Amino acid sequence: MNAISPAFLRAAAQLGDDITRPYTNSRKVYLQGSRPDLRVPLREISQYPTPTTQGAEDNPPIPVYDCSGPYTDPAASIDLLRGLPLVRAAWIAERGDTEMLAGPTSEYGRARAVDPKTADLRFEHIRPPRRALAGATVTQMHYARRGIVTPEMEYVALRESMCLQELRDDPRYARLLRQHRGENFGAALPEGFTPEFVRDEIARGRAILPANINHPELEPMIIGRNFRVKINGNLGNSALGSSVAEEVEKMVWSLRWGADTIMDLSTGKHIHETREWLIRNAPAPVGTVPIYQALEKVDGKPEALTWAIFRDTLIEQAEQGVDYFTIHAGVLLRHIPLTADRITGIVSRGGSILAKWCLAHHQENFLYTHFDEICAIMRAYDVSFSLGDGLRPGSLADANDAAQFAELETLGELTQKAWAHEVQVMIEGPGHVPMQMIKENMDKELSDCFEAPFYTLGPLTTDIAPGYDHITSAIGAAQIGWYGTAMLCYVTPKEHLGLPNKQDVREGIIAYRIAAHAADLAKGHLGAQLRDNALSKARFEFRWEDQFNLGLDPERAREYHDETLPKESAKVAHFCSMCGPQFCSMQITQEVRNYAARQGVEELAALTAGLAAKAEEFVSSGAEIYHRA
Amino acid sequence: MNAISPAFLRAAAQLGDDITRPYTNSRKVYLQGSRPDLRVPLREISQYPTPTTQGAEDNPPIPVYDCSGPYTDPAASIDLLRGLPLVRAAWIAERGDTEMLAGPTSEYGRARAVDPKTADLRFEHIRPPRRALAGATVTQMHYARRGIVTPEMEYVALRESMCLQELRDDPRYARLLRQHRGENFGAALPEGFTPEFVRDEIARGRAILPANINHPELEPMIIGRNFRVKINGNLGNSALGSSVAEEVEKMVWSLRWGADTIMDLSTGKHIHETREWLIRNAPAPVGTVPIYQALEKVDGKPEALTWAIFRDTLIEQAEQGVDYFTIHAGVLLRHIPLTADRITGIVSRGGSILAKWCLAHHQENFLYTHFDEICAIMRAYDVSFSLGDGLRPGSLADANDAAQFAELETLGELTQKAWAHEVQVMIEGPGHVPMQMIKENMDKELSDCFEAPFYTLGPLTTDIAPGYDHITSAIGAAQIGWYGTAMLCYVTPKEHLGLPNKQDVREGIIAYRIAAHAADLAKGHLGAQLRDNALSKARFEFRWEDQFNLGLDPERAREYHDETLPKESAKVAHFCSMCGPQFCSMQITQEVRNYAARQGVEELAALTAGLAAKAEEFVSSGAEIYHRA
Repeated sequence: MNAISPAFLRAAAQLGDDITRPYTNSRKVYLQGSRPDLRVPLREISQYPTPTTQGAEDNPPIPVYDCSGPYTDPAASIDLLRGLPLVRAAWIAERGDTEMLAGPTSEYGRARAVDPKTADLRFEHIRPPRRALAGATVTQMHYARRGIVTPEMEYVALRESMCLQELRDDPRYARLLRQHRGENFGAALPEGFTPEFVRDEIARGRAILPANINHPELEPMIIGRNFRVKINGNLGNSALGSSVAEEVEKMVWSLRWGADTIMDLSTGKHIHETREWLIRNAPAPVGTVPIYQALEKVDGKPEALTWAIFRDTLIEQAEQGVDYFTIHAGVLLRHIPLTADRITGIVSRGGSILAKWCLAHHQENFLYTHFDEICAIMRAYDVSFSLGDGLRPGSLADANDAAQFAELETLGELTQKAWAHEVQVMIEGPGHVPMQMIKENMDKELSDCFEAPFYTLGPLTTDIAPGYDHITSAIGAAQIGWYGTAMLCYVTPKEHLGLPNKQDVREGIIAYRIAAHAADLAKGHLGAQLRDNALSKARFEFRWEDQFNLGLDPERAREYHDETLPKESAKVAHFCSMCGPQFCSMQITQEVRNYAARQGVEELAALTAGLAAKAEEFVSSGAEIYHRA
Repeated sequence: MNAISPAFLRAAAQLGDDITRPYTNSRKVYLQGSRPDLRVPLREISQYPTPTTQGAEDNPPIPVYDCSGPYTDPAASIDLLRGLPLVRAAWIAERGDTEMLAGPTSEYGRARAVDPKTADLRFEHIRPPRRALAGATVTQMHYARRGIVTPEMEYVALRESMCLQELRDDPRYARLLRQHRGENFGAALPEGFTPEFVRDEIARGRAILPANINHPELEPMIIGRNFRVKINGNLGNSALGSSVAEEVEKMVWSLRWGADTIMDLSTGKHIHETREWLIRNAPAPVGTVPIYQALEKVDGKPEALTWAIFRDTLIEQAEQGVDYFTIHAGVLLRHIPLTADRITGIVSRGGSILAKWCLAHHQENFLYTHFDEICAIMRAYDVSFSLGDGLRPGSLADANDAAQFAELETLGELTQKAWAHEVQVMIEGPGHVPMQMIKENMDKELSDCFEAPFYTLGPLTTDIAPGYDHITSAIGAAQIGWYGTAMLCYVTPKEHLGLPNKQDVREGIIAYRIAAHAADLAKGHLGAQLRDNALSKARFEFRWEDQFNLGLDPERAREYHDETLPKESAKVAHFCSMCGPQFCSMQITQEVRNYAARQGVEELAALTAGLAAKAEEFVSSGAEIYHRA
């Protein structure tokens, strides 16, 4: 590992420190499932008590969904060179429908495994892959349709439920569980996610549980509009781009900040090796766009692509453990002329590769004509489809046009084909869409694609803010998430300008966690509302540390606060820097409430009828600024 | 000016350089109105030609609304110590309904003018104030109702129109003026904004033109849902906060980045002096919250506030030239108990001051009981109301509750009272609202307040992201702007944590320009769409410089691009750093389009019927990567 190893080992060493340290006052807890090896991670944020004149009032710990994997578990020993523990290994083996192969069955995988030129880059502990027994289907959809609840399904049921039903019975949570009525456009967001509910959603195709049998390191998660909205973070180097070590490090940071899945979009050299490093260290599903690598294999000439090369690439990647593939099988020859009058033509990389192939060969897209064969490969490893929107608009001007919607209809046709093979499917969506046209996208996806989960990139709601497209698109992402999109693909501030560095990834992930969470709230997700209520109560009570810790990025919140009021003492001060010590609306409000509590709300209400002025009594009983404890 | 002067002079000197330099390839142009002194600024962004195989294709200049004032006019000489030129002075004088006073008529203003302790801080060239002749009303609403088109109204008509009707006739703009049908919820966004349309909207109360007769430096602008959506940037120091010089500098930066109005929310010492510096150098309307200063005058004790002190403060500020006042006259005694069960009580500073006053005195809010007198003062200077929402929610949990909506109804009652005095009114709105409850706010405001312009703070759509509230709130702001809010008050990343520095102001302003622009697009604003289309075309054609220059923050876009591809040559490269030189979807698409153009769209369409495969012809005619010029 000459070229990579020193930097990589440095990164690996750092993991022990800034990436793996749990957030302040957070601890990882595990919910125990029905079998000893089924332990579902959750992060619990403890809170300080509220000092009151009647003594301290206890504030209960707040559970939050935890994407960070074993990295934030102080009990776990992390070794990037060996990869993560195999949480799913026994579950997969016990099903008895797969076999361990002697080694990779793809030509490329076999060649690469012994290539001396890439030996330095190779992950050291590559396992031989698994594959379904001949004729068997090993997808979660297959099991679900047979009424089987797999350990993976039980896992996500516990993960999505976050103990909320238990908290209902705990009086400390009573105020914090207050929520508004959501508006969820026909979705059915239950409070308790039972394993059977998870199974039925997967069987119905309304949710997917992306979990390749060759990715036993995975902590299962689910993507569907009747669950918490998920976000994806893109990684990957390009010819000009970053190294393997940097990508692994960015992945771990992404998970810490809140990415639910990762896509490896590498287009440079060493795609195969980078992916192995990522998957072996990924507790989250990993997606790819296999056409990118296939193109590398033909020196970047789309017209030289063949089904044989593509097929080999699918097998190569499936055997490494990729959990979902973006497949642009909806770019049909007849759709291509529909893009000719666009302002921004075809902007999807996959879409333009295939358009070029179709035109060069005057043949129908080979992904479309070989779709059944693709399904046959994917069901043997349980790779899920992410049906790519190769004709998505590249600008607001081109949104919701004939090309985009023609492709969407084709994706619906392919969804039914994939389901006939019991392969899981989600549908990719735009892109660039003005606000008034976002809902049409969602509605059309639900009807054309039979409620298969929608997975959108943004959409950006304006094109005029290069450098800020995490914001232009978070606006659209929040809306489409609310309308029913199951997973939001993040956009970083560097979109359209360059490759994201670590800080750009942070900005992108947090912007998208915000969008997804805002969507969850709008849909009436109780677990989402709980966190908002807890943070708001902490904010109102000047529990600064709790306000930081309950936030999406505690470290940034603390840093910003400390710029103006750096002293530790300020974190329990009854004021903040915006208004200064003499003047604080929250403080005054607290007085109002104390008074209301002392005098009784009824009396205050009676004032509205114009009853006796009790001014002096109030002033003499302490109209000065209230001091707590 | 001992304490302030050195830093201030440094700031003033800097203005000649980084703040005042026009953006690259931008020039300020002036639209000439019906009189020589009516010249309306517009920014024109020039573009590079597109090289094609048939020679260069001209790309026309793009006009954009310009908030930056004389600061970005190379022909203007800026002297912060003297203030800006008086563009409106003749217009006001000519109306003959005002008189120049000998000096300030407020007690405080008179005292402060001769106070030796503040002499060092005092703006040097204070003019004596103007006031309406006894009994006269000098508001834009007064004139509008009498059918008069003032120069201010003509100014905003030109400013909002941005020459769009002329561009319609220029073939170079034909593709760029393509747009989608907007959805604007009953608003009527015309393409050409005539002076008469402006007048009628003001007369109807559906728009305001905030323009104090003591702010002749103002470049008039309009706030109403049938016009471009506006944004406000808050400034102001606190006891812990910044200096006068920093506030002036932040103001100029805010205008450059795109603030349409400025609010001075200072709560520390020297409020009076800070305000004078700001207004004399402000080409945009300046708003304030007079109760903040009134509270200073009673040493921060709300219960010590009196009508006399408040009244004197209004006159003091009106005579300095404040264009709109936030007045929390809707916080009624009977509303206060409605907040007792909230998670975050009363969070508006003004609201909590008045709630405390009401409880201390067991009397109705004196701003409510003296409302007619307040109107009488404001109509003598043309100060507009921004009726404050003192009971706005401080968390999602408290959104749209009885307290908030009770106050909103009271604001509607006060709107009609103010209109009876011909005083202009806008209505402040929340705050913290989950997405599914935003539209209810807008609809209720329109009906309860008779379509007076809505002016909202965000709203934040989740409470869990301290450090990122410019994003949590831009999501809500874009939506409520689309639904009909006329002006969006920005939120910076420091919200809830500290005072914003210059970079925070930048983040806040750009996030809100994005939200406002996304709203304009959704409503079908042609001038907004023009800019998106131009930028998208530049992006597609690899005109990097044009892409930067057409963006909201050209400097950041350029900086981000250069991080990955720093060389000048890369700015005309046919690829970007995301995909590298061998692999670019836009490049491939261009091939597709060239081919389509050569062969005719009809032939491509014919392919869909399965006609002859012309593969070889295409490959031999140049299937390799297209090279331009």
